Amino acid sequence: MPEGRQSYREAGVDLDAADRAKERLKHLVASTRDRYTLSELGSFGGLYEVPGGISHPVLVSSADGVGTKLKVAFAAGRHGTVGQDLVNHCVNDILVQGARPMFFLDYLGTGDMDESVVTEVVGGVATACRDNGCALLGGETAQMPGFYDSGEYDLAGFIVGVVDRERILDGSRVREGNVLLALPSSGLHTNGFTLARRIVFEVMGLGIDDELPGTGRTVGDELLTVHRSYLRDLEPLLDEGRIHALAHVTGGGIPGNLPRVLPAGLGARVERGSWEPPAIFRALREAGNVERSEMDRVFNMGVGMIAVVDAGDADAASRSLDARGITVTPIGTVERGSGVRYA
Amino acid sequence: MPEGRQSYREAGVDLDAADRAKERLKHLVASTRDRYTLSELGSFGGLYEVPGGISHPVLVSSADGVGTKLKVAFAAGRHGTVGQDLVNHCVNDILVQGARPMFFLDYLGTGDMDESVVTEVVGGVATACRDNGCALLGGETAQMPGFYDSGEYDLAGFIVGVVDRERILDGSRVREGNVLLALPSSGLHTNGFTLARRIVFEVMGLGIDDELPGTGRTVGDELLTVHRSYLRDLEPLLDEGRIHALAHVTGGGIPGNLPRVLPAGLGARVERGSWEPPAIFRALREAGNVERSEMDRVFNMGVGMIAVVDAGDADAASRSLDARGITVTPIGTVERGSGVRYA
Repeated sequence: MPEGRQSYREAGVDLDAADRAKERLKHLVASTRDRYTLSELGSFGGLYEVPGGISHPVLVSSADGVGTKLKVAFAAGRHGTVGQDLVNHCVNDILVQGARPMFFLDYLGTGDMDESVVTEVVGGVATACRDNGCALLGGETAQMPGFYDSGEYDLAGFIVGVVDRERILDGSRVREGNVLLALPSSGLHTNGFTLARRIVFEVMGLGIDDELPGTGRTVGDELLTVHRSYLRDLEPLLDEGRIHALAHVTGGGIPGNLPRVLPAGLGARVERGSWEPPAIFRALREAGNVERSEMDRVFNMGVGMIAVVDAGDADAASRSLDARGITVTPIGTVERGSGVRYA
Repeated sequence: MPEGRQSYREAGVDLDAADRAKERLKHLVASTRDRYTLSELGSFGGLYEVPGGISHPVLVSSADGVGTKLKVAFAAGRHGTVGQDLVNHCVNDILVQGARPMFFLDYLGTGDMDESVVTEVVGGVATACRDNGCALLGGETAQMPGFYDSGEYDLAGFIVGVVDRERILDGSRVREGNVLLALPSSGLHTNGFTLARRIVFEVMGLGIDDELPGTGRTVGDELLTVHRSYLRDLEPLLDEGRIHALAHVTGGGIPGNLPRVLPAGLGARVERGSWEPPAIFRALREAGNVERSEMDRVFNMGVGMIAVVDAGDADAASRSLDARGITVTPIGTVERGSGVRYA
């Protein structure tokens, strides 16, 4: 039983440390400001002006977490990339509806308040916000003793973007015979980590600094590869109106995500042989003896985003993306029916 | 070492349970839709049209968590109120800048996926969204085995509201001699729970169903009282332009929050004798032998929101709030200087 004079600090909450961390974050946050950002860090709410020049602005918003990829960051003691994963994931989620990001807020729940870890995590968030032209408008760092193991945390994020109502990607332009262009993922992105960690650390018995067979990289490097943002790659095609639909391949894989953006009555045929999943997926499948259909549902299998385009536009779209340094692959077509049929 | 065929489910992630929970949440989410909500649950991003009739719409956004008040909900096995705490907290945070809520997104991190708990938590979020005229536009429920103890979770939320640029409350109308009107809190709201729990459960040795001395209520009922939303109370005064500034009294208490909304060169004098903190605060102070300044910094001391009004308007404002069933108390004035000076 605790005795004597009780205080917040003695109970495990350090308001001064929170203030110091906030001070260290100020310049990071400031580096993401744009001309629509009206507030400073520390105001109750962040202020952001709706950009002019959009006839019918529609806000597009999404919330997400990093999932158990965080456990890999804890094991590696590297906290600078998970914030980038989070922002890029959110950017992709609203991009599939045609929206460009405006601002982002993060939530970081911690047990103790390790100022350097907080700064590293939020630094990653700020870096990705800058890269995506997105203001880091606010956030919350919560000290919750007894919730998280020492040195651990949970991280969630919220994004708000904008799209003109006439330019929302809602699948209505998708037609039978449209081509599915696969944009490569950078690795696992942020999905399937509970299964991947089990296979890598328990079944394969690897450590964070061991080489992951077939990849030529360490477990830490391979698993912590940053979730790719497709904003800069896809912006020109979106501006040209060449894209009929976009599917961000997250939890649920291609079969779980592609049908979400296809209109009723249409499904997709995906040609398995049209692309080679990167080595990490083969390693996981073999070591874990995972069924192929389970792999498809849990992982992105090397396809991070699918763009649905007119068959006559597929070559031009591919060349445009090639010119930006991203090699896309036609992996199938839209067909009558529903869901995804592998062939 | 796990053997044989590996699957996501066996690793602790149940995609089918997630789908079932999503299905159960659909009608809850649907009940919060308004005429600006363009998307359904399950789309990648939520779509919300910027309401017309606002000459220069400025978005106001805030992220927050529930903190260790969640531990009280776990102990009581009552998960229906923490979502209300979260939404009301966020609504108050943007209200202080003059904004009305448009939409909300939640993040729920869990270890296992107890569908009934998830439904109860998100049900509370949806209830408060309806009460505050705010669409529950989306959210994320993350299954993170090994992150949270069984039956535990973390909950964060994110709100977006709107205010006309000309009507942003930025403190510029605050003048020396303005009156501080205190709006009563309903209890601890969502701050100071790490200290409060330590005192109640460890120092006082009480259980969740024991009576909390002086309050006439059980520990569970008193500590889980819902954080009050001041939106409906303050809307008429905001519409009339009678409010110069609002301070939401959260972590940091009155001294930590009131100065945030006062312009440079002005501080506040708060008369300690002008109000009687509710019994819960006396109980915590006495049992925990907590210093008075520490109480002031950690807890709201019975004051959930402070409205700064012209001295000549104070009576009319008080009567207007009285008529809405909320008794306000003048607790001090704005004076030259900085910070809060207790008298």
